[in-house]
Amino acid sequence: MSAGPYSYDYIRDGAAIYARSFATIRAEADLSAFTPEQAQIVVRIIHACGMVDVASSVNMTADLVNAARSALKAGKPILCDSEMVAHGITRARLPADNAVICSLRDPRTPELARKIGNTRSAAALDLWGDQLEGSVVAIGNAPTALFHLLELIDAGAPRPAAIIGMPVGFVGAAESKDALAGRPDLPHVIVRGRLGGSAMAAAAINALASEAE
Amino acid sequence: MSAGPYSYDYIRDGAAIYARSFATIRAEADLSAFTPEQAQIVVRIIHACGMVDVASSVNMTADLVNAARSALKAGKPILCDSEMVAHGITRARLPADNAVICSLRDPRTPELARKIGNTRSAAALDLWGDQLEGSVVAIGNAPTALFHLLELIDAGAPRPAAIIGMPVGFVGAAESKDALAGRPDLPHVIVRGRLGGSAMAAAAINALASEAE
Repeated sequence: MSAGPYSYDYIRDGAAIYARSFATIRAEADLSAFTPEQAQIVVRIIHACGMVDVASSVNMTADLVNAARSALKAGKPILCDSEMVAHGITRARLPADNAVICSLRDPRTPELARKIGNTRSAAALDLWGDQLEGSVVAIGNAPTALFHLLELIDAGAPRPAAIIGMPVGFVGAAESKDALAGRPDLPHVIVRGRLGGSAMAAAAINALASEAE
Repeated sequence: MSAGPYSYDYIRDGAAIYARSFATIRAEADLSAFTPEQAQIVVRIIHACGMVDVASSVNMTADLVNAARSALKAGKPILCDSEMVAHGITRARLPADNAVICSLRDPRTPELARKIGNTRSAAALDLWGDQLEGSVVAIGNAPTALFHLLELIDAGAPRPAAIIGMPVGFVGAAESKDALAGRPDLPHVIVRGRLGGSAMAAAAINALASEAE
């Protein structure tokens, strides 16, 4: 770049930016509650939101990493509650060219939402059907989607291999993640409280998809 | 829903969830630094991240809301640095069926990045060309994109009407937003420091797109 009065001094190399970001996160974050494998997930969640303190809000079951990685390596689909989550997943990291599915904009979803008396985000899950079996589910937006996932499983739907539970916000987000936390039979990772979002959910998937940092 | 042992008690009506969310945000957040119009933007940014305290990190120029709303009503495009930002924009809120453009996955972008010695996120902006004129730019991921936008403008590129400057993270995010803050000639809104992200950037666009809360 030319060194004019308006040029800026910044790192322009993508790999160097990643390396320095992860080094900063590992220097600042308290990851002592996690195994090295779990810490990889937490580091990417921190990277997605810019807050090292979020580590203290992350809970995951001991079987989460293995369950999710095995499912992804076996080619199981990733089922997302929002387009933002789906578009935050780095396809090049996926071990088996896994399908990334979001049915929120399926033309059947609005009518289904009216029929079951729930949000479109929740109703969209009813279209997943047998794809749920052994899948990795990533909820990064709607608390109603996470609540409805638990309802579907309790009603006998196929069980996913792992659940990324990170809906965000002020109504139902904390409660839906508490409900998932009460289900140790379902391998899962959550960010407790109001925090969460599509970037964190996609980051968790990206970390589980490949051990490369 | 059936009232079985596994049913959950939660609000299933989307409009009611929005209303309660925004009421909670307005009850808890300190919005005293903002005009009523500006506060609408801040409320949606808070809604996207679940943190009322983010209000204290938001800075916007006095002309931002009018500049962005006028551009959107005139049908100008929304230029995004990431697919997540583009997919977080609610098309139904846009006043003129505005184009939402992200050129990160354009096949020319990787070669362009090598040529200019910058990230793909930055190089993608070189493909915006004359679409920049009077546009609304939304940067929700890459600090290098925001730095490069300022470099392009300084080198004589067409000027956008408004800039949503919300890259996130540990390398360059704070610095790139400080650089934009030093340009009062460019109508803008930023979230200072490491915080930011595609959800906040999309939320700012969604708030500017329609006055309906």
